[in-house]
Amino acid sequence: MAIPSPLKHDLVPHTVIRLLAAGATDHVVKLLQKQHPADIARILQRIPDRHRRPTFDLLVGHNRTLAMQALAELAPTLGASLLEDRAADEVARLLETLPADDAAPILERLPDDLSTRARDAMSRRGGADRLLQQGDRTAGRIMNPDVFALPETTTAGDAVAALQRSAGQQAEMVFYLYVTDRDGHLVGVTSLRRLLVVPPDTPIHRIMTSDVVRIGEDEDQQEAARLVASYNLLAVPVVDGHNKLVGSITVDDVIDVMDDRTTKDIQKLGGLEALDEPYTQTPFGTLVKKRARWLIVLFIGEMLTATAMAYYEEEIASAVVLALFVPLIISSGGNSGSQAASLMIRALAVGELTLRDWWRVMHREVLSGLALGSILGAIGFARVAVWGRVFGAYGEHSLLVALTVGFSLVGVVLWGTVSGSMLPFIMKRLGADPATSSAPFVATLVDVTGLVIYFTVAALLLQGTLL
Amino acid sequence: MAIPSPLKHDLVPHTVIRLLAAGATDHVVKLLQKQHPADIARILQRIPDRHRRPTFDLLVGHNRTLAMQALAELAPTLGASLLEDRAADEVARLLETLPADDAAPILERLPDDLSTRARDAMSRRGGADRLLQQGDRTAGRIMNPDVFALPETTTAGDAVAALQRSAGQQAEMVFYLYVTDRDGHLVGVTSLRRLLVVPPDTPIHRIMTSDVVRIGEDEDQQEAARLVASYNLLAVPVVDGHNKLVGSITVDDVIDVMDDRTTKDIQKLGGLEALDEPYTQTPFGTLVKKRARWLIVLFIGEMLTATAMAYYEEEIASAVVLALFVPLIISSGGNSGSQAASLMIRALAVGELTLRDWWRVMHREVLSGLALGSILGAIGFARVAVWGRVFGAYGEHSLLVALTVGFSLVGVVLWGTVSGSMLPFIMKRLGADPATSSAPFVATLVDVTGLVIYFTVAALLLQGTLL
Repeated sequence: MAIPSPLKHDLVPHTVIRLLAAGATDHVVKLLQKQHPADIARILQRIPDRHRRPTFDLLVGHNRTLAMQALAELAPTLGASLLEDRAADEVARLLETLPADDAAPILERLPDDLSTRARDAMSRRGGADRLLQQGDRTAGRIMNPDVFALPETTTAGDAVAALQRSAGQQAEMVFYLYVTDRDGHLVGVTSLRRLLVVPPDTPIHRIMTSDVVRIGEDEDQQEAARLVASYNLLAVPVVDGHNKLVGSITVDDVIDVMDDRTTKDIQKLGGLEALDEPYTQTPFGTLVKKRARWLIVLFIGEMLTATAMAYYEEEIASAVVLALFVPLIISSGGNSGSQAASLMIRALAVGELTLRDWWRVMHREVLSGLALGSILGAIGFARVAVWGRVFGAYGEHSLLVALTVGFSLVGVVLWGTVSGSMLPFIMKRLGADPATSSAPFVATLVDVTGLVIYFTVAALLLQGTLL
Repeated sequence: MAIPSPLKHDLVPHTVIRLLAAGATDHVVKLLQKQHPADIARILQRIPDRHRRPTFDLLVGHNRTLAMQALAELAPTLGASLLEDRAADEVARLLETLPADDAAPILERLPDDLSTRARDAMSRRGGADRLLQQGDRTAGRIMNPDVFALPETTTAGDAVAALQRSAGQQAEMVFYLYVTDRDGHLVGVTSLRRLLVVPPDTPIHRIMTSDVVRIGEDEDQQEAARLVASYNLLAVPVVDGHNKLVGSITVDDVIDVMDDRTTKDIQKLGGLEALDEPYTQTPFGTLVKKRARWLIVLFIGEMLTATAMAYYEEEIASAVVLALFVPLIISSGGNSGSQAASLMIRALAVGELTLRDWWRVMHREVLSGLALGSILGAIGFARVAVWGRVFGAYGEHSLLVALTVGFSLVGVVLWGTVSGSMLPFIMKRLGADPATSSAPFVATLVDVTGLVIYFTVAALLLQGTLL
């Protein structure tokens, strides 16, 4: 693998496109064969749709394994789309070049009949099939079922020999040697290096750690990620209900899980349902549906502002000047709330905070809210007072209006901060994902209350003058 | 390491607290010594501040190595705070039990004089010092300088022997064997397994891959993460300007970098400056400053809404009903904008989209915006029309008002979606982080324009009736 430079990443796809346009297919293949599968995948993803299939087919013709390794690096839907026109047995032969955990998500996204026929045609069907029988977000769904394990009675010498015989990239990646009893139960783990430092006739159960971090095939993928991340593991063994070793999840799978989780979190924070596929791969209809649902919920919630405003219609009529600052004031509540929410969402996600800490947080956020509110309140007061004084804006009582805006901002920002910080806790308490307390969600919540605060302050301060 | 269950995670800290309160310190130590360093760290982080230092000191007394391993798993500031009362040479001795890449961030956060004296007192100072001389977000800052490398002239047999001699967890973790020439330049990589499958007298330059993915010590940590993630590596070697091997970054460091990046992104998306420390470790003053800066910027931007509203003051005065829907309409623009922005921010971050794709995206988002706008517009129209008809709200021209609201929503949502989707591209084009196009930022941008759209539509539809 060459040293990839961002420059190169951008150049190659365009060279490929030029070469394809020029019909110089041999050159394309020659160029691609020099690339790492991950880079080929990036190229396939970048080039225009009409070029993608032909380029892939070309590569399959010259180097099936490389082509499929690249396909495995693509989003599964995109990968499946590159296969769906082929015959079932051909698809089967191609997918068999991949480890089961790479083949499964592609099989899953092929047209049903093709998928079924391909699965029947696959000789090593056991692997991919077992994965597809697992629940959707389970560890078993992403494990590599062909894991390198040794019976506890093996000697260090035989273990090394077995490793020497074992072929393929999978063995190349062996860093933990799992040890099983005669019924295939996971009983320990040892390392290749430890095999080398003991006399060859040492039985491995003597050089193994019997206390292994493991995960059940039905457990959540996020738990696998948490284990690998917090215990700095390179892989975690997967066991079935009877502690039988059924596979392993390597750290590169975990990185994919983490990336996927981050994507979904960021989309939720943006106030839409998380997409199941990359943005460019998501059909327009799905895209609109996933966005519309939340948008409608928020819109209906926001309708309450119209009700609230209607409630204060008289005040507005008699002091139109009040209406001018409505957007300024409610948006300040939304902004401070979104800040607080995002802080809590992340702290809860990484386990820095737990539900138990809500009171401590509330205490701290009340103080933050007061501080931030006072700052914005001061600026707001100054803005209105100065405009009133210098430009004679906002009528004769502009100073009172300035006071109203200033004090309202303190209240609204305080309220926004506190509710924004508590919402993620409430979400978690209700068993929902704290990340759903998105900026738009928080903003909608505090807009109505913001109006109430504003017009209440106005009523108090402008009584007898403007109102 | 036992199988950690969330249950256990919650129980242990409270058992510890109970035991400490009861003064049963020996039990505390006994309990902690059974835990994995990562779990001890979690416990130290969870227990009340007043218990943290004594508990840690207890553990240091009984098991220095374990105590320091746990400390290394804490946020560096917190870790440093647990050491700052000790004598420099003692701090040095404790930090020497850690790999340089774990010691450096703690050294860095100790009080200056203590830090300097501790660094002088550290015998293996080379390691940690070299890291601290590196730039802030560079790969060299997080590398492990004591990397296992072999001269190219070594034979496979000697390599295995060297590995057998090499002690410690670092060698335990060896999965890539880096090969260097006589001047220490990185010339290749091989695997432990490959050493075992060739005759012992084979020189390793014959079984090495000379085309190694590597990273310069001055390059960004994010690039290290990208390399490890996209090429599914377990570690990436770090070289200096002359291609001399100076260290390696293992996948567990990369996971920390990714986590840290996600945290900062989520905070930026929330509309505040990213914190440098965990929320609970960030001093109140810093916390308020990081939030206030953006809040003030947004507030000043939002002041334009007051200007815009003032510009339409007459219209509002003659048709107060118009004011009632201002929050509803501008918030819809902000929400749709925040959805679009979060989609783009993530797609740009994972390289699914590049600057070149802006036009394709714009095209797609215009359609999405029209679709979403029509949906909200229809609901908005219905809401106002029905209230007008059924409750006789919004005066005699309620149907015209309903039309105004409906059409404005189409325009505002369309505009929000398009600007929300383009802002991240503009940010990236300007060399800024796309993640700064936060929901609050987008909302502020589209609020003013939302008002203009609304009152323009109103002027067109209500001319001669309400206006």
